[in-house]
Amino acid sequence: MTVKERLGRLREEMEKRNIGAYLVPMADFHHSEYVGAYFEEVKYISGFTGTNATVVVTMDEAGLWTDGRYFIQAERQLKDSTILLYRMAEEGVPTVAEFLRDKLPQGKAIGFDGRCIMADEAASYQKIAEEKKGSLYQSEDLIDLFWEDRPALPHEKTWVLKTEHAGRSVTDKLEDLRKTMEEKGAEAHLLSSLCDIAWLLNMRGDDIASVPVFLSFVYVTARECRLYIQDQAMTDQAGLHLRDANVDIRPYEAIYEDLPLMEEKSLLLDKKETNARLFDLIPDGVVVINDFNPTELSKAVKNETEIKDTIHAHIEDGIAVTHFIYWVKNAIKTEKLTELDADHKIREFREQADDFLDVSFETIAAYGPNAAMMHYSATPEEFSEMKPEGFLLVDSGGHYMTGTTDITRTIVLGPLTAEMKHDFTTVLRSHLRLMTAHFPQGCIGQNLDILARGPVWDEGLDYRCGTGHGVGHILNVHEGPQSFRWKVLDKSKVWELQEGMIITDEPGLYIENGYGIRTENELLVEFDRKTEYGKFLKLRPITYVPIDRDAINVEELTHLELKALNEYHEMVYQTLKDSFEGAELDWLREVTLPL
Amino acid sequence: MTVKERLGRLREEMEKRNIGAYLVPMADFHHSEYVGAYFEEVKYISGFTGTNATVVVTMDEAGLWTDGRYFIQAERQLKDSTILLYRMAEEGVPTVAEFLRDKLPQGKAIGFDGRCIMADEAASYQKIAEEKKGSLYQSEDLIDLFWEDRPALPHEKTWVLKTEHAGRSVTDKLEDLRKTMEEKGAEAHLLSSLCDIAWLLNMRGDDIASVPVFLSFVYVTARECRLYIQDQAMTDQAGLHLRDANVDIRPYEAIYEDLPLMEEKSLLLDKKETNARLFDLIPDGVVVINDFNPTELSKAVKNETEIKDTIHAHIEDGIAVTHFIYWVKNAIKTEKLTELDADHKIREFREQADDFLDVSFETIAAYGPNAAMMHYSATPEEFSEMKPEGFLLVDSGGHYMTGTTDITRTIVLGPLTAEMKHDFTTVLRSHLRLMTAHFPQGCIGQNLDILARGPVWDEGLDYRCGTGHGVGHILNVHEGPQSFRWKVLDKSKVWELQEGMIITDEPGLYIENGYGIRTENELLVEFDRKTEYGKFLKLRPITYVPIDRDAINVEELTHLELKALNEYHEMVYQTLKDSFEGAELDWLREVTLPL
Repeated sequence: MTVKERLGRLREEMEKRNIGAYLVPMADFHHSEYVGAYFEEVKYISGFTGTNATVVVTMDEAGLWTDGRYFIQAERQLKDSTILLYRMAEEGVPTVAEFLRDKLPQGKAIGFDGRCIMADEAASYQKIAEEKKGSLYQSEDLIDLFWEDRPALPHEKTWVLKTEHAGRSVTDKLEDLRKTMEEKGAEAHLLSSLCDIAWLLNMRGDDIASVPVFLSFVYVTARECRLYIQDQAMTDQAGLHLRDANVDIRPYEAIYEDLPLMEEKSLLLDKKETNARLFDLIPDGVVVINDFNPTELSKAVKNETEIKDTIHAHIEDGIAVTHFIYWVKNAIKTEKLTELDADHKIREFREQADDFLDVSFETIAAYGPNAAMMHYSATPEEFSEMKPEGFLLVDSGGHYMTGTTDITRTIVLGPLTAEMKHDFTTVLRSHLRLMTAHFPQGCIGQNLDILARGPVWDEGLDYRCGTGHGVGHILNVHEGPQSFRWKVLDKSKVWELQEGMIITDEPGLYIENGYGIRTENELLVEFDRKTEYGKFLKLRPITYVPIDRDAINVEELTHLELKALNEYHEMVYQTLKDSFEGAELDWLREVTLPL
Repeated sequence: MTVKERLGRLREEMEKRNIGAYLVPMADFHHSEYVGAYFEEVKYISGFTGTNATVVVTMDEAGLWTDGRYFIQAERQLKDSTILLYRMAEEGVPTVAEFLRDKLPQGKAIGFDGRCIMADEAASYQKIAEEKKGSLYQSEDLIDLFWEDRPALPHEKTWVLKTEHAGRSVTDKLEDLRKTMEEKGAEAHLLSSLCDIAWLLNMRGDDIASVPVFLSFVYVTARECRLYIQDQAMTDQAGLHLRDANVDIRPYEAIYEDLPLMEEKSLLLDKKETNARLFDLIPDGVVVINDFNPTELSKAVKNETEIKDTIHAHIEDGIAVTHFIYWVKNAIKTEKLTELDADHKIREFREQADDFLDVSFETIAAYGPNAAMMHYSATPEEFSEMKPEGFLLVDSGGHYMTGTTDITRTIVLGPLTAEMKHDFTTVLRSHLRLMTAHFPQGCIGQNLDILARGPVWDEGLDYRCGTGHGVGHILNVHEGPQSFRWKVLDKSKVWELQEGMIITDEPGLYIENGYGIRTENELLVEFDRKTEYGKFLKLRPITYVPIDRDAINVEELTHLELKALNEYHEMVYQTLKDSFEGAELDWLREVTLPL
């Protein structure tokens, strides 16, 4: 079927059900950041392959909403589809909600698969439908009715993260969770977020590329904990592990049958993380307590074992990335290399670590102007050759049995212009200023962001993203609730920085058609000291890879920034030196010497 | 009458009215920061003379709530009063509300003069009274019934700030105000804040020491503007001025008769700035729109004339303060001087300016350990002698016909310890880091605060106040809504920094029993540049006084901080040099040379 034929089939199904507009989001049933092939309905219905999009189909129109990263790609891919591109956040472009308000005919329903849209978003569509004397239709996945060669729902085997590596037993974590439920007056708790479930149950899976989670729901009461999971994902080991923790196992789909029968009178859930179909099944009379999943903060504050293990993972990762830097800076002098070679090679170096599991996200190996596109990723169809000049930006990370990493280095492959060096030094100053912050307990990311952004703002420049995000422990590389941003995106999600949180420090500069620079370390929030003015915290870098001194204008650094850089490099050398030898060790010593 | 007798009289009046607890706040009818003698009921009923206190009297107890600045003084002054001291913000000490909840007998009223407590605060007392099946009694000032030699209500003559100095005519300001009223759907607006009224009507008065305002209310509708003002405060000039702007004049007290008769159906006011008695008089059926007074933001964003004039005032002020510094650094070598001498002398130098009106607040001239008390002020009864060693901290300001100033310098009178120099340099670094910030439109004070606090936090130190506040234009030296703080105090009052705002930059360090250091300039928010990343703003210092280089450890400054200091000093020199001569000019040149 062509895209036009597919749209035709969808409209037939819509007509039968009196649906005036049907939404197809890029989403799974759990509000996951990334989704697998089964969930790629956007791609199926529109031909668009980017990672962020919503398609809206009415009887005589169809639109696709995506963000700036994908405008060019979307234009090309939607060419013969009859689907119009709506450029998100551009002036004069309506949002999906505005489009619906404008185009939904009176008395018609807004349709979508209620499992793929979260309850809080669905509530806004409900309002629009009511304004038009229509309703929501969310009980069916209309595309599934005619998508014949749809990939299967993933159900990879899960595995158990032993308590010695998780730091806390499932029993202990459940005890904490139940305490919080009691404080919030909740007899029951519905948990839909896959990372939270994996963390709570000390289990990992492989249902989403680069995110070791498994499709599931958890329902917890004072006495019971039920895991809804696909049978194929279970192993004997997982069965025993769950039995030990008094966790009952139910089929994945059974949550939709069980929830309407719940006997508890109050239910804690996060409406932003709970799909609309499930939310609709909560029996009348149950008091819904809409709040964060308590596990969100618990998993963000790493325990001692998670910290110790994560640092171990960073050392493994640092060895790999440092090998890669040595290799690429040398190889580029004599070999023909592409971005894909860089991507493969850094993976190869990571795979040499005993406990390497997988990359933690698709590697960004962006040469020259490609690096100015913040989410660029080379593909077998589109990639650039590298030359012995300018910058190669590599943003990559790994999952290890001990933890997850995320690191960016901008590597000098050859001669640079004065501007390139100045910009690299500016980003380095930003990075170091944040890294060396000391601050009292009570600060949020918004208080600290200007330390990183200041040197960039001083030149009328900026980077169009946050300065840093939390990192999961063998989970999603992007984790909340903490972040470094100057504007608070969601005022209900403002969290104080706390000891044990891990957060990235990744300022950058992106010069369109020129180059991109980003320097990213992960920082561990640590106790600094207690004085008459309260408890102070500090940030400790736990990424161990040299920052390319070939691009640094030393005279632009303040003496404090230079001191921080030299101390960082000495720590990198001391941490890595026993894993290197010969010429490579000599090089490592040289590139980490004080400037 | 003794304090005990006065309390006895108050209790007699309370008993007659079935009042179980009577509140006496340190406040006028307009929520002003400072109050005049007429309003000093706290002093009358308790003997306590500090500037922040609330007295609560029940039939068998009496308490006085004040903050840390006044604990020692209050203890002494309350000694034989039977009034207990409640140390605000100390652990285990109940708030006034908690005390009332605990001590108010069932069925009894909470009493206070409803003109001295604002509507939002009164609402919280209403709740407590209702919990006790009691009510509020706020229609009488019980203390006035027996306070025989009470000072008269102030009614100093007002004067007109001509449009050429105000920058905008009253007619224009009223037009803007009416536009905002319309946007907010308000047919009428009640304005009680004295600074807002003075600003709106381009008039000034002298009813509060150091704050040139006049007791008044304003009531605005689409067609009418009524000024409620004491007859004695009016002049022919003011009468003509108000007639030109179509402002009607009514007696000050008539607002309490007129408000119940209002015909408009909606009323914009700020419940935090409107007294409870007035609020109670709003007729049923009128929709109250509780929001900021629109003039609050309008007066914070200075117009071109206000800016030009204010800079002129700062030059006058800079000349005076610089003369003072030269004088005191020399005089201390040979003369016996006290803090009071410093206070008098700096006033003398200011009085030499043609357009000097008054000091803008009580001068803080604090020598040695006294400066560690952030709100210390020498009095004829208590002051210290100064020696040719250590620091003299002088925080002072003036009202001029052209504007208002606020400046702090910490002056070296003689030998310093290494610690003192280090601390002075740290505060200077804090000051300069904030002063040199560049940031996009959209930032709030909370984003920038760490620039100032960072160097202090790096040592586990802090200062227990904001880093900066807005400054009025020939009005209260403390003005909102902008501020530099790291914690937002009132989330409803978060304002973006905007071009034309003036805000102080005054980090400090306060070493108990040692010394106090503060360096304060005023900064004007200015346009920096517009780039693809938006509009950027910067901060321009408009205070022109050398910072004492005798206390600076140059090697601790980063090269960027040193550059900022040198540029600042060169600007000071160029601005002041024509007003100095001879040895003093030589000295000025020397102390502003690049370091």
